[in-house]
Amino acid sequence: MSAPLRDRTAPTEHPVLDVLDVLAGRWSPRAFDKESTIDEATLAAVLEAARWSPSAGNTQPWRFVVARRGTALHAQIVEALTGLNQTWAPAAGVLIVALAEEHDADGNPLRFAQYDLGQAVAHLSVQAHSEGLVVHQMGGIVREALSALPGVEARFVPLTVIALGQLGDAASLPDKLREREVAPRVRRPLAETVVAAA
Amino acid sequence: MSAPLRDRTAPTEHPVLDVLDVLAGRWSPRAFDKESTIDEATLAAVLEAARWSPSAGNTQPWRFVVARRGTALHAQIVEALTGLNQTWAPAAGVLIVALAEEHDADGNPLRFAQYDLGQAVAHLSVQAHSEGLVVHQMGGIVREALSALPGVEARFVPLTVIALGQLGDAASLPDKLREREVAPRVRRPLAETVVAAA
Repeated sequence: MSAPLRDRTAPTEHPVLDVLDVLAGRWSPRAFDKESTIDEATLAAVLEAARWSPSAGNTQPWRFVVARRGTALHAQIVEALTGLNQTWAPAAGVLIVALAEEHDADGNPLRFAQYDLGQAVAHLSVQAHSEGLVVHQMGGIVREALSALPGVEARFVPLTVIALGQLGDAASLPDKLREREVAPRVRRPLAETVVAAA
Repeated sequence: MSAPLRDRTAPTEHPVLDVLDVLAGRWSPRAFDKESTIDEATLAAVLEAARWSPSAGNTQPWRFVVARRGTALHAQIVEALTGLNQTWAPAAGVLIVALAEEHDADGNPLRFAQYDLGQAVAHLSVQAHSEGLVVHQMGGIVREALSALPGVEARFVPLTVIALGQLGDAASLPDKLREREVAPRVRRPLAETVVAAA
């Protein structure tokens, strides 16, 4: 490229110039407000954003289990979280299990399922942030437990659980997580991510 | 959920109410303008958007090869495309190879690499669309050929090639692709994507 790519190595919470606010301001907090709920129209819009994500051959290899706080399904999802996730995620107004459709109904492999699921969740996250909500994705899950949830066919593989809700007070977190909550966001310099350019 | 999720089964090019314009209006055209170029600041912003994407444990398991039209690298990437992709993708001002870091430098597997790469590319696409550019991701690639490009270590697996540029005239496309270009965007109803809800 004709000029070096910009490198921001000391980001703050809103680190990025010249990028959409909804992308620059997005982050993954753990402090969720344990009282507030998400209205139906907002939740539908968040899922609708995922729906219109692109995918290989328009295969749309994503499925979701959606559970509001206070339901048995929400509690079942919490049970399937590992480690410290169980300390904070129960406060999230909605938990969503993100499932990759690794094989279609005829048994054919969908090799972009994980990649496309990631895209759909990104669209969901961007919409959620624009609605004033926050999102934290968790990979620390017991897949077998989530595979046993209603509606989850064997060809739908649980990859993450998405906590969705209103931002809460960091003081509600265990010490170790509270430190992480307020730490600056950091990323590798772009010059190391672009491995070749012309 | 308390009310049925909305279902839009007859979308137009801009099908989605109540969702951010940058998500609702995003699509994946094949007609790229073969003359226009992308200025350096815009290209940097598009990559910067990917940079700030979330990832499992902040591993950032994505890398990119970035090539402007007219360079040998761009031509090499075109050579690694399959089928009809070679008829339209050469017009894209920039081609980006999206690489999943499937193992870290110590050889440990990064099992969310494909999912996280998909998220980073989604962020890139949203930023590009907001800049007035268009993006079309291609899974039809010869991985071995792309793995041989400069900077691509064995642990970086090529998953897609991203065409990035200005929208061109659909008349430039072969008949078969021109029909697809103007067809309405369609998606599965949300009620089939949410396999369980409470």
